[in-house]
Amino acid sequence: MQIKIDRKNFYDGIQTVRKAISSKSTLPILSGILIETQEKKLKLVGTDLELGIECRVDANIIKDGAIVLPANHLANIVRELPNKELELELKKDNKIEISCGLSQFKIHGSPADEYPLLPEVGSGIEYTLSQEKFQAMINRIKFATSDDESRPFLTGGLLSIDNENLKMVATDSYRLAYTQLELDKDLKNEKIIIPSKTLNELSKLLNSEDEIRFLITDNQILFEFSEITIISRLIEGQFPNYKQVIPDNHKTEIKLKKKELLNATKRSALVARNNSNIIKTKFQNDKLMIESNAPEVGQAYEELSTSQHGDDTEIAFNANYLIDVLKVIDNEEILIELSGELSPGVIKEVDNDNYIHVIMPVRST
Amino acid sequence: MQIKIDRKNFYDGIQTVRKAISSKSTLPILSGILIETQEKKLKLVGTDLELGIECRVDANIIKDGAIVLPANHLANIVRELPNKELELELKKDNKIEISCGLSQFKIHGSPADEYPLLPEVGSGIEYTLSQEKFQAMINRIKFATSDDESRPFLTGGLLSIDNENLKMVATDSYRLAYTQLELDKDLKNEKIIIPSKTLNELSKLLNSEDEIRFLITDNQILFEFSEITIISRLIEGQFPNYKQVIPDNHKTEIKLKKKELLNATKRSALVARNNSNIIKTKFQNDKLMIESNAPEVGQAYEELSTSQHGDDTEIAFNANYLIDVLKVIDNEEILIELSGELSPGVIKEVDNDNYIHVIMPVRST
Repeated sequence: MQIKIDRKNFYDGIQTVRKAISSKSTLPILSGILIETQEKKLKLVGTDLELGIECRVDANIIKDGAIVLPANHLANIVRELPNKELELELKKDNKIEISCGLSQFKIHGSPADEYPLLPEVGSGIEYTLSQEKFQAMINRIKFATSDDESRPFLTGGLLSIDNENLKMVATDSYRLAYTQLELDKDLKNEKIIIPSKTLNELSKLLNSEDEIRFLITDNQILFEFSEITIISRLIEGQFPNYKQVIPDNHKTEIKLKKKELLNATKRSALVARNNSNIIKTKFQNDKLMIESNAPEVGQAYEELSTSQHGDDTEIAFNANYLIDVLKVIDNEEILIELSGELSPGVIKEVDNDNYIHVIMPVRST
Repeated sequence: MQIKIDRKNFYDGIQTVRKAISSKSTLPILSGILIETQEKKLKLVGTDLELGIECRVDANIIKDGAIVLPANHLANIVRELPNKELELELKKDNKIEISCGLSQFKIHGSPADEYPLLPEVGSGIEYTLSQEKFQAMINRIKFATSDDESRPFLTGGLLSIDNENLKMVATDSYRLAYTQLELDKDLKNEKIIIPSKTLNELSKLLNSEDEIRFLITDNQILFEFSEITIISRLIEGQFPNYKQVIPDNHKTEIKLKKKELLNATKRSALVARNNSNIIKTKFQNDKLMIESNAPEVGQAYEELSTSQHGDDTEIAFNANYLIDVLKVIDNEEILIELSGELSPGVIKEVDNDNYIHVIMPVRST
């Protein structure tokens, strides 16, 4: 193997596929990146066996070949090299020589045939949409997944194709995030659960106005966009019936400025009890009063103007849940729908039905 | 106590005095900030009993008073409040009420009379110089202090007044940093050791073109600049005779570009053995060759152009020491003076005798 490659493109490719690599892997070869010539490109692969990321980078291929190189060392070296063309040449004993100007590195690699193959993906449900829209959907739900490994079906996000709608849902049973997008063609109904690591890394990689294609098979999902392919296993199990969780009516509807509520909630959280971060909200006379107190620190009181329809009401929330959802909402104005202090609260954007966030109330005393 | 104060000025003052506060303090009151009205200002104080920082902030004093408030909570709250005028009012039971627009906090404080007084500073050697120059001196030596608490006299920097020169020196016995500045008046000769925490925090706070005044007494040093006063204990003990460590002649003198050497050293360090970070340098025919290798990773080879006078030579260094000193040098060109592989190497700036850095060689095998 002998190639010439632009330093920056190579580095970006390394950083892309590294996202799949786990520092906790017990199989040493999985801490490496497979690099392999493929037609006129260099293919890079990283995987933790559950998530695999493949990236293709333009290169001048002088001689074909493949090798696995330690991801951290490779990334550190390529980061520090001058912004010039690099030359990579595979020598005997799986040693690779990286030259750049008057800098030269020899790194020990591992044979490419010891690297696990990413699984072949069969046929299945296929759809293409804008990266930007898909990223927005992921970002609006991914923070609501659960960390609780004893209920694996909550540790990912539901992707559901349901009557010409693409829906994504996540819940940790204390809150639920729901988002939907109308499909422009009729697809077979399907429900899968995508691991949160996949959602997180995918969201970081999506950024262009180009499209992303996904392909769902029995136990895998494949994403293709730009020069990147991602293959992820799916989580087995039954996702909770989220439709039951979203209230279909309410007694109070409040319109208010998102930023004002976010800032007031952040401040209130500073003196909310450490574990549950409880803040008490009271909606009355077109005003929202927020109270919190942490015995060891002190109390906070905030007052905001609102536009209220329906009953006055009080309800207590975990401040962090409120902060999480307010951070992902772009709209300047939001709607809060409530039905008393024991019923879940609903947060929506004004003039947008495509995002619904449900937060369970907490007992305030 | 009742005052009105600009949020940003108050926050900056809090951040300034917090630098003296240690998270490891066993005395609970030391995790707090003393705030106290003083003429038309609010005085803030933080201390760990070894270093004390006092800062005065403009305020509208309605009623005099003093209180100690928990530093972390106070900082978090004042950071999140809107950029408006804050009102602070001391209520009964050491509670303070902070209001800003429609936000209101009540925080538990502690009585000001429980807070330790910063020591009174007597008379001593006094000098005033530019903040910028003093900051540059500190930055050029502070990284060379030792962490080894068993030799406390190496854990600070020497400040010496010596025949109309202000000198600062630090060494951890593997390297030594020396810098000097000509004084514009004749002072009594003096040698003190300033703790590295004081040097670090002082360096962060210095930034304006105004002057800084220092006052050295028997066991303390006081710094005054802008609206800040810093009082630090001194380290007892005898600082090593640094003059003996700085070689007064050499067999090889090499001139080279600082940035090229820094980048090549950083890269070489990536494949240098983890603990000692050894890189081997070879100076020959107006060239510098750097070699390093880490058995588990690979090898690096770098070549740089130099301008050499005197014998060809080889010497091995800890790469990190070389990186540390090259990072604080502003000059584009440096001089390296060597006397063989067993003698310390000296790094200077071209056309500047005010900074000398000595690095001990390491055995390369």
